[in-house]
Amino acid sequence: MRNSTRGNVDPFIVMDVMEAARAAEEAGRHIVHMEVGQPGTPAPAAARDALTSALREDALGYTVALGLPALRRRIARLYGEWYGVDLDPARVVVTPGSSGAFILAFTALFDAGQRVVLGRPGYPSYRQILRALDLEPVEVAASPENRLQLVPGDLEGFDYHGLMVASPANPTGTMLGRAALGALIDAAQGAGAAFLSDEIYHGLHYEARAVSALELSDDVCVINSFSKYFSMTGWRVGWMVVPEAQLRQVERLAQNLFICAPHAAQVAALAALDSGEELEANRAVYAENRRLMLEGLPRAGFDRIAPPDGAFYVYADVSHLTQDSRAFAAEILERAGVAVTPGLDFDPERGAGTLRFSYARATADIVEGLARLEAFMKAR
Amino acid sequence: MRNSTRGNVDPFIVMDVMEAARAAEEAGRHIVHMEVGQPGTPAPAAARDALTSALREDALGYTVALGLPALRRRIARLYGEWYGVDLDPARVVVTPGSSGAFILAFTALFDAGQRVVLGRPGYPSYRQILRALDLEPVEVAASPENRLQLVPGDLEGFDYHGLMVASPANPTGTMLGRAALGALIDAAQGAGAAFLSDEIYHGLHYEARAVSALELSDDVCVINSFSKYFSMTGWRVGWMVVPEAQLRQVERLAQNLFICAPHAAQVAALAALDSGEELEANRAVYAENRRLMLEGLPRAGFDRIAPPDGAFYVYADVSHLTQDSRAFAAEILERAGVAVTPGLDFDPERGAGTLRFSYARATADIVEGLARLEAFMKAR
Repeated sequence: MRNSTRGNVDPFIVMDVMEAARAAEEAGRHIVHMEVGQPGTPAPAAARDALTSALREDALGYTVALGLPALRRRIARLYGEWYGVDLDPARVVVTPGSSGAFILAFTALFDAGQRVVLGRPGYPSYRQILRALDLEPVEVAASPENRLQLVPGDLEGFDYHGLMVASPANPTGTMLGRAALGALIDAAQGAGAAFLSDEIYHGLHYEARAVSALELSDDVCVINSFSKYFSMTGWRVGWMVVPEAQLRQVERLAQNLFICAPHAAQVAALAALDSGEELEANRAVYAENRRLMLEGLPRAGFDRIAPPDGAFYVYADVSHLTQDSRAFAAEILERAGVAVTPGLDFDPERGAGTLRFSYARATADIVEGLARLEAFMKAR
Repeated sequence: MRNSTRGNVDPFIVMDVMEAARAAEEAGRHIVHMEVGQPGTPAPAAARDALTSALREDALGYTVALGLPALRRRIARLYGEWYGVDLDPARVVVTPGSSGAFILAFTALFDAGQRVVLGRPGYPSYRQILRALDLEPVEVAASPENRLQLVPGDLEGFDYHGLMVASPANPTGTMLGRAALGALIDAAQGAGAAFLSDEIYHGLHYEARAVSALELSDDVCVINSFSKYFSMTGWRVGWMVVPEAQLRQVERLAQNLFICAPHAAQVAALAALDSGEELEANRAVYAENRRLMLEGLPRAGFDRIAPPDGAFYVYADVSHLTQDSRAFAAEILERAGVAVTPGLDFDPERGAGTLRFSYARATADIVEGLARLEAFMKAR
């Protein structure tokens, strides 16, 4: 059998870091993990309890393709609680993670060969999923002066059928304010392009709450997940809010592509939505970690950083220290015992001069990691 | 936003039956469900217990993309137990259900516009997923004299890049013997096409065990799932066995398209693999249900049936009774209170004259359903 061309996607460069970290741990070394993009906390206790009960009482067979009706209603209510948006639960589609939402949205909206604009730096799987679905990622470099987020001026001269933004963004943590987000929605709609907003890091803000694209327009596709704020990465459950006109198409595709999102994860997710206290306690840990990072990274010499408004990342320009972030990350792992992510996955060009530091883990790890980074940089 | 062309897949006709059955139940009627394609039993007790423990002890974050190593090893061992095949665990890819395996296999193997042969009748999502991925399903009518399975002669004159077969098949339950399966593998390999074997109903046989394509060739892609024999439909966990040469491509695609299969489902699946006693008890129920069906359906007048070697379906030719299976199914639901599936989803042409009866539920339901069908047909 032959491999397809479209399936020939790039490897993740961070995998080399993770494999080296694993090997070091196997050899007995202690490694601080600042490369991971997931919480160290489990799903909220109420979510685990709800599933434990369901395991005794329910066969947990297929759900309907769009998800458990109670979960769709509760997600719709979240839009009232978080943003003051009155959302029809019929527009909520429960998906197998935000990954499933991307596949669903891209196949529902775009035909082969169509072009979707992504900002650089950005989550690498956007472009890989687009390629696997025979779509053309159009990566546009975002400027540091715009907090590494796109602005309408960046899109001039490009012909495109879709525009995807993320706020807070991975790897930078920067957010789009109401005016900036609205301007991008207007630009896409003016170009006749679909507007997709990846809101997977919503809930993880440290000053103002992130603005949802749904506050500004109904003609957008919003993607979110239980992975980050709700601390349920491995559960593979997320959601999408789509315009009324897309619903029928999205439902039929979901029936065929996925049948449904994992039932057990849907049960847990419903309870997670009412676990505010535990989730806010998690957020307080990230807030403290972020404070430590913003203090400790510059002290170690990593002082050129994008404003980390949300998520749990700091993205640092290290181009004055290296032009090979992959080798630099390997050196940091080897000599400091701290795993960090080279920027190349997020930005194949400028990423040679950037690193992403995650502060998703326990505060004690952050303290230890920062001390190691500072000692390493002093000795370098 | 505009809907894509490729996302405009056909609706499931069975959904109308299911919606009518739901409405009838809401109005207080008792309906026997012979339309469902899933067990009524939950995941095995050991699977639920394993997850209950894991919920207390493990954060259940992302797993590696190819799945938990212990689960991949245990699946590999199953090939020894069931087929006497010595399988390298490295070739086992854990997927989000067989649905995820189809998406992964199709994108890894085929480029846009390539042609994949499917037998008619067959599982409708094959063709819908192919279309959503810009591939061309080439549906070839299988003959009743070949048990509604393809034979190499059926493929002559077709130009194709892939061939997908299923044994036991949905909707027919018919199986391919070793020689018949081998002939199809040879035909595909001779045509330079990839061979895909959907083995999701393996384990659910009533005389000889189904033959796996892996017993005959290593250059095949085998897709299976925990949904049917292991009674874990809603968990969305399945697997794929791929040739060595496809592994790297499949791994990278899985990382980007899914990140991983649901962790909780993987934990449960690992324990399900050692739940032989409970699963064999489920199979004994299906065997008894099948015996009742093979006795009761002909007595009711449904006597033109494909040999139901495996799975939990009987596919009946009712073309002497109707040329509109959709209306006939509606009439059976309305007058007999039995929900059955019109054949149109599986075979848009000849399906106007066929029905699928499922015997996946409890034996008492089967007895009641058969009595109702007999009374309905006598009164008709």
